[in-house]
Amino acid sequence: MPTSPLIIRQAYHGRAENTMSFQNPLVKEILGLSRRIWALHHALSLMGWDAETYMPPRGLEERSIATGELTMLAQELTLNPKLVELVDKASRLEGLNDYERGVIRVLSRSIRIAKALPPSLVGELARLGQEARGAWLEAKKRNDYSVFKPYMERIIELEREAAEHLGYEEHPYDALLDLYEEGLTTRDMDRVFSIIEPVIREVLDKVLSEGYYPQKHPLEEARYCEEDARRLNEEILRILGYPLGERGRFDVSAHPFTTGIGIDDVRITTRYEGYDFKRSLLGTIHEFGHALYELQIDKRLKTTPLSGGVSAGIHESQSRFWENMIGRSKAFTQAFHPLIKKHLGRILGDIDAEEIYRYFNTVRPSLIRTEADEVTYNLHILLRYRLEKLMIEGELKAGDLPEAWNDEMERLLGVRPKGHADGVLQDIHWSMASIGYFPTYTLGNVVAAQVWSHMSGELNIYEHVLDMDFKPIRRYLEEKVHHWGSTYAPKELLKRSFGEEINPEHFAEYLRRKYLDKKI
Amino acid sequence: MPTSPLIIRQAYHGRAENTMSFQNPLVKEILGLSRRIWALHHALSLMGWDAETYMPPRGLEERSIATGELTMLAQELTLNPKLVELVDKASRLEGLNDYERGVIRVLSRSIRIAKALPPSLVGELARLGQEARGAWLEAKKRNDYSVFKPYMERIIELEREAAEHLGYEEHPYDALLDLYEEGLTTRDMDRVFSIIEPVIREVLDKVLSEGYYPQKHPLEEARYCEEDARRLNEEILRILGYPLGERGRFDVSAHPFTTGIGIDDVRITTRYEGYDFKRSLLGTIHEFGHALYELQIDKRLKTTPLSGGVSAGIHESQSRFWENMIGRSKAFTQAFHPLIKKHLGRILGDIDAEEIYRYFNTVRPSLIRTEADEVTYNLHILLRYRLEKLMIEGELKAGDLPEAWNDEMERLLGVRPKGHADGVLQDIHWSMASIGYFPTYTLGNVVAAQVWSHMSGELNIYEHVLDMDFKPIRRYLEEKVHHWGSTYAPKELLKRSFGEEINPEHFAEYLRRKYLDKKI
Repeated sequence: MPTSPLIIRQAYHGRAENTMSFQNPLVKEILGLSRRIWALHHALSLMGWDAETYMPPRGLEERSIATGELTMLAQELTLNPKLVELVDKASRLEGLNDYERGVIRVLSRSIRIAKALPPSLVGELARLGQEARGAWLEAKKRNDYSVFKPYMERIIELEREAAEHLGYEEHPYDALLDLYEEGLTTRDMDRVFSIIEPVIREVLDKVLSEGYYPQKHPLEEARYCEEDARRLNEEILRILGYPLGERGRFDVSAHPFTTGIGIDDVRITTRYEGYDFKRSLLGTIHEFGHALYELQIDKRLKTTPLSGGVSAGIHESQSRFWENMIGRSKAFTQAFHPLIKKHLGRILGDIDAEEIYRYFNTVRPSLIRTEADEVTYNLHILLRYRLEKLMIEGELKAGDLPEAWNDEMERLLGVRPKGHADGVLQDIHWSMASIGYFPTYTLGNVVAAQVWSHMSGELNIYEHVLDMDFKPIRRYLEEKVHHWGSTYAPKELLKRSFGEEINPEHFAEYLRRKYLDKKI
Repeated sequence: MPTSPLIIRQAYHGRAENTMSFQNPLVKEILGLSRRIWALHHALSLMGWDAETYMPPRGLEERSIATGELTMLAQELTLNPKLVELVDKASRLEGLNDYERGVIRVLSRSIRIAKALPPSLVGELARLGQEARGAWLEAKKRNDYSVFKPYMERIIELEREAAEHLGYEEHPYDALLDLYEEGLTTRDMDRVFSIIEPVIREVLDKVLSEGYYPQKHPLEEARYCEEDARRLNEEILRILGYPLGERGRFDVSAHPFTTGIGIDDVRITTRYEGYDFKRSLLGTIHEFGHALYELQIDKRLKTTPLSGGVSAGIHESQSRFWENMIGRSKAFTQAFHPLIKKHLGRILGDIDAEEIYRYFNTVRPSLIRTEADEVTYNLHILLRYRLEKLMIEGELKAGDLPEAWNDEMERLLGVRPKGHADGVLQDIHWSMASIGYFPTYTLGNVVAAQVWSHMSGELNIYEHVLDMDFKPIRRYLEEKVHHWGSTYAPKELLKRSFGEEINPEHFAEYLRRKYLDKKI
């Protein structure tokens, strides 16, 4: 029946009470006010998921307008004077428990960011992001950077301006990093890269000269039937522990993604290109890692500002852990070889588990980040990190970007793009005015190895993988990371759970153990 | 990638401008403010659709909380003092065009209703509606009204209170009718029933004694394969003109419904019970009628308060027109017989078009409203209308309801329910505190016949149906009804488009032409 003007009485279902975790009356009042911001994000998540999966294409215009309106509304509710006042008051309270402090930290941060950016700047970024994406698509299609250049120019200007408004201690780029990864600095990333770059180089040289990990594999060309791959992916998801059909869905979209609509509704997607089945399979495991994080958040945090993963980097660490440390391991390919054979027997033929392992672990310097292996991937990020930092410093202009890209590509990976489409124009991020996001990918890889290393001290990970018994692994992640949601800031979480902040040595150890010792 | 704290710059896509229809600066300012209310309804519609189709079941708790929060938020934005002031100011302006006046009428009405109901009453209705639905489900399962009785008691009390707050001229029930059907009164409905009841009775007697329209048909028992029925429904939808895959979707849900998420995104569902295929087929055509209304609304009304159908009754007139006047007609069964045979040949055998027509038009006094035919359907509504009026007058108590129901059932339809489940507990409406909704079903049937009658004066409807050429029919509906969205109040729309307000004589004429003269 059509919506009634009194629908309010039909839709209201009571409020979740978090009596265990939240006791302070001021914090409870704050949660009452912030719940509608959560509700807007719930709606926006669903709207985003729907737009990529089931929405009829002509619905896009209205969806875009509604998304803009509700995003602005969430922003306004964040700056609601009553909420701001209560959060300010609560931030001076003593004796709050960790959850309560977490709520105040997360809201204070949102308020600080929302307050720092002048509406005119936000408005221009919104308009520009919209137009720039169109220009980027056009430029990429035509393989001609000049179409995108004026937008990139303005994006750099506005991001530099945003950095000044947001404030920073050492480097303006820190202000942008912090947007995606609370507390992450240029100093952190410099240290990370200074440690991992030489190891990557060492491992890459060895791998390329040795040839055990192939640069190409015939299975990359092998065409599969979508239905077979879907069944395989679903079976893997169930074995890993994804609550398909109860608290999750598994759909198809142009670009794979995970959406946490609620703690009990976390949906993932994949795509089927029809060849090179590992792309869909490992992509699915990657998204499972993101999803598991959201699914294992303490249910008492439902509808609160703590009910999602804490940052882009920590999130990526979870997806990368499952994709690389689990999915690309010897134990995984050995355990799952029969299952892969069952569903993809027609293209697999006599290929054994070790051959699958080699197929899953091709290593080659390439031009495209999203197709890079786990050895070379971080070099793609290092390139972008260096260029972004230079742009924000004002040392690199939009006009010089393609040349700088190609030079850096050659220096880092020894390959030079022929055009702009497979060079400077390959990623969507800059066209969306997202500067400062890329480093979270490397942080994800580094933290994944850190989690793996600490987990190895407590669990025999690969015994469990061989047994297809993922519960101990899920439990460990739940206890150390997932359970907390956004309760602790990223560095605080690492410190608390592993006794150390970001430590790239684990990634170095992981690469060596895998690619030099061939132990993983 | 996870949501960025600056997502606002990624999500904003500009605003739709309605330069043609809205010129007054005050109205334009109002539209700017009301657009976020529209955006909330857009989100709520999607959330409702998703909950019935693709949502993982455990997501329900968070969905319910989010729905409640956003519904309350929409209510608050409606009462935003700035908006209220501007609407009040605009309502005193001269020289507005029809669209502009429509905006002010719709918003004034929402504001008036929102203001009239005290928050305590709205709150209690919300809680009660929630609990009552659980009790109703339980009572229905146990076939025991006493479980539901205390809730029904309180619902009647609160609805009577609501009527007093909302205000009325003649009868308290008018205040509730108006919630679903702007301007509809007890006087209107009394007149409608006084004219159609004797005709229904006359037709029913004739049909039952004559036997041409059977009371039962063997096809009601025939089991079909869901996939066949789905293909048939989809092909019918495409022929009728539903833009499947462009501006619409066709999914499966427990109860069929239509959701207008936007003018360019109107989705319908059906269900497949596996037997009696006309239920799914005619249900699909019914939903198509609802959908076509939303799809043909003037695109310049996008994102405004006028962008949906004007009322429950007018909406139902569109679904009933397509279901009954088109789908149950001789011309339709003749034209679509080959298609039905193509998809359901296995269960159809030698059954010819006339036999399909008789199967589509079984007539029998029965206990259940949702299974009633077009002859007896309005008697089911008359029963509910009488009881609701008595309850709101204070003349019928919750405790006496089952007996009153059964007596009235026997008087009107000559059948008496054995238990409560197929009697007083059969509908969900009262458990949702929806009193005043039922009459819009009969209004829909009556207005459908009115549209049909006027359309017949301009088009040879059944020639077009025989030719499967539905464009002239769609065009007519677009011009007379759909195009306007909520620009005119229901009675004003009828007057403008057909030169008369609600006129039940057309329904009487339709029943006689079809069931006595067998001309349709």
